[in-house]
Amino acid sequence: MNGAESLVRTLVDGGVEVCFANPGTSEMHFVAALDRVEGMRCVLGLFEGIVTGAADGYARMADKPAATLLHLGPGLANGLANLHNAVKASTPIVNIVGDHATYHRAYDAPLTSDIETAAKPFSGWVRTSPDARSVAADGAAAIAAARTPPGRVATLILPADTAWNEGAGPASVPPVPVRAAVSGEAVEAAARILRSGEPTLLLLAGPALRERGLELAGRIAAATGVRLMAQTFNARIERGAGRVPVERVPYPVDLAVKALADFRHVILVGSKQPVAFFAYPDKPSVLTAPGCECHVLARPEEDLVGALEALADALGAGRHAAPVASLDLPVPATGAVTPEAISRSLAALLPEQAIVIDEAVSSGRAFFPPTRQARPHTWLQNMGGSIGLGLPMATGAALAAPDRKTVCLQADGSGMYTLQALWTMAREQLDVTIVLFANRSYAILRGELANVGAENVGRKALDMLDIGRPDLDWVSLARGMGVPGVRVTDMEEFNRRFAEGLATPGPYLVEAVL
Amino acid sequence: MNGAESLVRTLVDGGVEVCFANPGTSEMHFVAALDRVEGMRCVLGLFEGIVTGAADGYARMADKPAATLLHLGPGLANGLANLHNAVKASTPIVNIVGDHATYHRAYDAPLTSDIETAAKPFSGWVRTSPDARSVAADGAAAIAAARTPPGRVATLILPADTAWNEGAGPASVPPVPVRAAVSGEAVEAAARILRSGEPTLLLLAGPALRERGLELAGRIAAATGVRLMAQTFNARIERGAGRVPVERVPYPVDLAVKALADFRHVILVGSKQPVAFFAYPDKPSVLTAPGCECHVLARPEEDLVGALEALADALGAGRHAAPVASLDLPVPATGAVTPEAISRSLAALLPEQAIVIDEAVSSGRAFFPPTRQARPHTWLQNMGGSIGLGLPMATGAALAAPDRKTVCLQADGSGMYTLQALWTMAREQLDVTIVLFANRSYAILRGELANVGAENVGRKALDMLDIGRPDLDWVSLARGMGVPGVRVTDMEEFNRRFAEGLATPGPYLVEAVL
Repeated sequence: MNGAESLVRTLVDGGVEVCFANPGTSEMHFVAALDRVEGMRCVLGLFEGIVTGAADGYARMADKPAATLLHLGPGLANGLANLHNAVKASTPIVNIVGDHATYHRAYDAPLTSDIETAAKPFSGWVRTSPDARSVAADGAAAIAAARTPPGRVATLILPADTAWNEGAGPASVPPVPVRAAVSGEAVEAAARILRSGEPTLLLLAGPALRERGLELAGRIAAATGVRLMAQTFNARIERGAGRVPVERVPYPVDLAVKALADFRHVILVGSKQPVAFFAYPDKPSVLTAPGCECHVLARPEEDLVGALEALADALGAGRHAAPVASLDLPVPATGAVTPEAISRSLAALLPEQAIVIDEAVSSGRAFFPPTRQARPHTWLQNMGGSIGLGLPMATGAALAAPDRKTVCLQADGSGMYTLQALWTMAREQLDVTIVLFANRSYAILRGELANVGAENVGRKALDMLDIGRPDLDWVSLARGMGVPGVRVTDMEEFNRRFAEGLATPGPYLVEAVL
Repeated sequence: MNGAESLVRTLVDGGVEVCFANPGTSEMHFVAALDRVEGMRCVLGLFEGIVTGAADGYARMADKPAATLLHLGPGLANGLANLHNAVKASTPIVNIVGDHATYHRAYDAPLTSDIETAAKPFSGWVRTSPDARSVAADGAAAIAAARTPPGRVATLILPADTAWNEGAGPASVPPVPVRAAVSGEAVEAAARILRSGEPTLLLLAGPALRERGLELAGRIAAATGVRLMAQTFNARIERGAGRVPVERVPYPVDLAVKALADFRHVILVGSKQPVAFFAYPDKPSVLTAPGCECHVLARPEEDLVGALEALADALGAGRHAAPVASLDLPVPATGAVTPEAISRSLAALLPEQAIVIDEAVSSGRAFFPPTRQARPHTWLQNMGGSIGLGLPMATGAALAAPDRKTVCLQADGSGMYTLQALWTMAREQLDVTIVLFANRSYAILRGELANVGAENVGRKALDMLDIGRPDLDWVSLARGMGVPGVRVTDMEEFNRRFAEGLATPGPYLVEAVL
């Protein structure tokens, strides 16, 4: 058994059942091994940003890593931006990068580059396998590294001769590492603050935003009056009817400062101190009020749900009911297509257990409140700020959860980064309804020009924010990749076509012209 | 004058007149400065791979660098693959990357990453500007670094506060560094080999492949019988009627070994020792015969044309005529669409002074011989092997040479990496005729599976090489970005539509279904 086959068998044994790939010559033995090993589904992306973004979406829904397969340094480079997003979302990914055969590197052939250095800023673990007999064990170590809480991008570099030479057979994969319990002191410190009655925010992240964590947080809020919030962007939140609703810290600095102004304490549950997404002249980087203290109940890698259980126990919160949202569906919006109207129609039409992929950017700022009482659903966001995650993440999420409908809310500027994902959706017939927000500009940057105090802005500058001239035709782009689509310019048509997409198996794109 | 404006003025003073950009919040002051400074054309790409690939194509035709403007680590990451190609082609680029304000980095906001480390494997020079008063001088240093022979990617990282704080005004740009003359010993050593009559190859690269270098090499060949070749892939070759034709080292290892088998000496003129693009089991990495010696006449950064002049003088080659190609246009091909037929029609129809961008990959292997006696033209290739350079390079080349026709020979698999370039072509109305080779597979990899000895290949593996199912519709994709196009399935239609594209100003795409 060659090294490639020993690695593929190790991956399957370790629960890695999907490989998102864009392979080349140096990965051909890995590709060939796929047909000799049962249990690995291999999914082609036409660009590596699709591959890594899909691996992110997959792991968020499957709660275990997928593998990637990338072609040398440039193939990795093309996938780095969505690996950046995965790192920031603590998503586990086994990121496999082929390299030249060990003895060939010295010749500096055209595709030679320093892969380890390129990978490091966007990985939590990096290893180059030295030979074919090590590659299975290195693969097992990569799985363990990826699954180390809170989840990491583990990059395994695979020189071609480690794939084609004789290997040592599959390696055993260590058990999935468990999250460490938080200390009794951290729980007691948090309980003390909550008993003090001082204005306090419980800032939730990671697994604390799943149903059990939310329920516990809701009971604690009912018992103590603490406010609950999630960060501005979150890897995954369970929402809608039957779930405890949480607000998010607003994105604009001024609104965030206002929303956080009254808190004397922020208790971090897997979250980070709230800071501004960008710096702006004369605006603060830290969003909390002067004098507000941040306290760590649980670090991101610790057992967040266990910490909330312990805190609820300490506060006697178990006898309080969690304030869950009731089902309350609005009537779908009519008239002009606006972000507000779409959010109302979304709230009305989102199907039970929908997975919402949110890269609506400026169009999506107001989507949370109207959907609070929608049918129960799961909401995934971009935590790294590198645009172009939406369509790939929808691809991976839909693949991980084929029994649920994936709804991808995609801004046009961001969508153009990784539009090739549409082809993978068509090939795999993934059940994704895409709402494409065609405002034909990098709308967020219009505000940012003013926010940073840039003055005397003229045509040349505005042209850099404007993605019209010519207008993109997303229906043609989708058709070019085998995805049916339709353009809508009023909400009646939007409601009809969005419902049609939801009712149609496979991918479907609704271009909503704003 | 803020730092951003001092930098833009320095760039313009230093001859950098075009900025390919995909900016974000942290680059807004740079963008705003563009309207206050005369002489900088700013061109938007909808993905950073377009930005960096266009900068490569621009510099190859303009013989001076363009600037880029990228948004933090992920924006850089998206541009790295085409920076890799630029590094391998020794293309000068002033690669500007915005970063968070210096004081904001410590807060680890979502878009924070280690930009310097990410840039290093794909840059010849990296600097982070520390403050607004330094940024103009750092920009001047970046221009000088980029233009240091043979040409480098110079990455300048620009924290947002270095752009918005008060700067020190424009900095003076050092003179363009000149190429060093080769030593008399190197010339005499090469002359001695050529006088020996032993089978020798003169392997040309870089500026030696422009008209003057080719003419000198042709005279030397006429005087001594030395064979002339270019590397497999080349940044720019002047070709066609009136130019000295050179073959290229073949891509497939077996053919390359055969082509080089008889040489006892290889004289390198800015070129590298011929090595295999990839390693394969039981095939050599070094392509020359055992016992063949490589001799350096001129290193890539030295004065290659001067070296050829000195060598021609030493050999008395001046009195020999260079064997230039005569004009001999074939009749355009008819019948089925094949790579061979297209190469014949290309030879017949290429207009005078066309710029040919060659990312035809497997479809393009046979294009060189038939076009040897075509009208004079310039041929640009991908030297780094990272696919997805063709359409962006065509964008930059067309912008640099608006009076010439750019013909982009683009494979479909590679084209999908950076198809967003079509939109920039449409916006800027660049005069590019694209021939899109739709073989609907990563055809090169089918051969590579066999070459690496991968066995027992089944459906799952073949699916990774096949980009049909669904077929891409390039006419729809082009229309979606504002570029007119047409699909052809026979050569009569190809000839008609290709000629139509050549006769039409602006971009036009011919999808040739193979």
